[in-house]
Amino acid sequence: MSIKGFAAFGPGEKLKPFSYEPGLLGPHEVEVEVTHCGICRSDVHLIDNDWGITKYPALCGHEIVGKVSAAGPEVKGLSKGDRVGIGWQAGSCLACEWCVGGQENRCAEQAATCLGRPGGFAEAVRVDGRFAFPLPKGLESHHAAPLLCGGITVYTPLRAHAHPWSRVGVIGIGGLGHFALQFARAFGCEVTAFSSSKDKEGEAAGLGAHRFVPVSDAAAMKKAAGSLDLLVSTVHVDLDWEAWMRVLRPGGVLALVGATDGKLNIAADTLLLGKKAVLGSTIGTRSAIREMLEFAARHAIKARAEVVPMAQVNAAVDRVRQGKARYRMVLENR
Amino acid sequence: MSIKGFAAFGPGEKLKPFSYEPGLLGPHEVEVEVTHCGICRSDVHLIDNDWGITKYPALCGHEIVGKVSAAGPEVKGLSKGDRVGIGWQAGSCLACEWCVGGQENRCAEQAATCLGRPGGFAEAVRVDGRFAFPLPKGLESHHAAPLLCGGITVYTPLRAHAHPWSRVGVIGIGGLGHFALQFARAFGCEVTAFSSSKDKEGEAAGLGAHRFVPVSDAAAMKKAAGSLDLLVSTVHVDLDWEAWMRVLRPGGVLALVGATDGKLNIAADTLLLGKKAVLGSTIGTRSAIREMLEFAARHAIKARAEVVPMAQVNAAVDRVRQGKARYRMVLENR
Repeated sequence: MSIKGFAAFGPGEKLKPFSYEPGLLGPHEVEVEVTHCGICRSDVHLIDNDWGITKYPALCGHEIVGKVSAAGPEVKGLSKGDRVGIGWQAGSCLACEWCVGGQENRCAEQAATCLGRPGGFAEAVRVDGRFAFPLPKGLESHHAAPLLCGGITVYTPLRAHAHPWSRVGVIGIGGLGHFALQFARAFGCEVTAFSSSKDKEGEAAGLGAHRFVPVSDAAAMKKAAGSLDLLVSTVHVDLDWEAWMRVLRPGGVLALVGATDGKLNIAADTLLLGKKAVLGSTIGTRSAIREMLEFAARHAIKARAEVVPMAQVNAAVDRVRQGKARYRMVLENR
Repeated sequence: MSIKGFAAFGPGEKLKPFSYEPGLLGPHEVEVEVTHCGICRSDVHLIDNDWGITKYPALCGHEIVGKVSAAGPEVKGLSKGDRVGIGWQAGSCLACEWCVGGQENRCAEQAATCLGRPGGFAEAVRVDGRFAFPLPKGLESHHAAPLLCGGITVYTPLRAHAHPWSRVGVIGIGGLGHFALQFARAFGCEVTAFSSSKDKEGEAAGLGAHRFVPVSDAAAMKKAAGSLDLLVSTVHVDLDWEAWMRVLRPGGVLALVGATDGKLNIAADTLLLGKKAVLGSTIGTRSAIREMLEFAARHAIKARAEVVPMAQVNAAVDRVRQGKARYRMVLENR
């Protein structure tokens, strides 16, 4: 019983049909019939081998929603037919101090859903059942898929650093940023959207922003100085971080969730004198993912997604590569 | 009634006798007869105008212990004869959101004890009585003086980020570092001292370090990789911060308390992938200073200080300028 999907065979190449034999189902594994799979920028990085870690053929996709079609004998709490979500992480050792402490996203032996193993641009996928999350009823599948990676990525630093009374800014209004605006608004925060696209002002407001600042507008940026407690940067380019630190109030935090190539160009004294912090964050724990899904359902937080048939994966990947998705691409098996 | 002290009249110059008329005592002011005054590296920076903000004549000194000799009519809780400590901060607006919230060290209008006003290298000093702290009985004056700035500077990030079960490293075993080792040990932490002076190993152990790592020893540094939850850097030079991030465990924090000139040379992705943070911290709140003094008395945390007569201020300043103090210089009015 082979599984059919779409894989890249070399950096930047178009994905082509690809099938593989999954072998025997492990005792803790579930097989999930994919109904939807979001496309994350990191899928594009993997397809293009930007990180030098891709193994071809690369069958990407790690924002998966589907139905359990088979479950190994040790799987608990999931049954055939259950609708589940799967994110970046497909497994971990479940024995180290981090796993035991509920921080399995810090496990040194963690498995990624589509790195060195086949992911979700396919008709089915297999993962450790302990990394497949039941979805709340109120959350439609195409709205939920991108939450599994994009959503948890911004939820984690907000959960750690945003209080309901915080003034929160989101840098970059794309796949990650459009979730960050919604979560921050639902947390009760005062929300500011920063974007290089002036035409996103109306949409940012619709996503929860109280204020919109076009980053090219020097006067508006100057006015924003010293106004925020937390900045979540979702962009994948190196910015003038020193300048962004000035947007923070004393004691403020800059949280980076977008992977970039460069070094921080912040003066050490800027941190000292402002009692400020810079931190990085990726994905989140299993318990935070479950919590985030419930939170999203309760607050009607949804991916604004362009949904296209799985067969159009190449056109969809291109839209993500070019930064044109508004705000997330979701593949659907129809 | 003039107050006599020692002031610098130009960058890098020897201090000379200087006296000034303090005028009428303000309603909230106390006059404190200085018995002891520590010398902090920032006094040297001010004397030398390293920060370009010095006004001459500059009468420095902001690690003051003395006895209240006069108190304005609005001063509460302090009486003539009370032994008090005074640190970097001599006042704040006490009305802004930060002051009202107990974070007066973030007040934009705060006054520094010896910046633009005469400090503690003198026979007396005047400050707002709300910034003079009664000293616990068990704390001797020459042991206490350097706690008022050096002590609170390292206590603040430890208080915010060290748990009793944390693995804490201290970079640089000098005036600040020797306090950090003592506090971290008293917090219950596992404590590692990092120093460029191999001969400080025994002293570091005496100050509470469980482990000593000479930073020039590449093998020892390699062995330290991934071992710590919190690093407190007390040095005043720019290090290879990227390398220091590798000493941290996943989720670890690098806290900078030593003022440096340079920029952070850390890759943004280092923070992301390690879920790590870099932050800066200076001094502390009034409530943290009171708490720290009680904590120090309870745990017999003391400045290891070379105590010299106030008249030897120039030789003492030179020892701090040259990094020769072990570990703090304290001037005494005999």
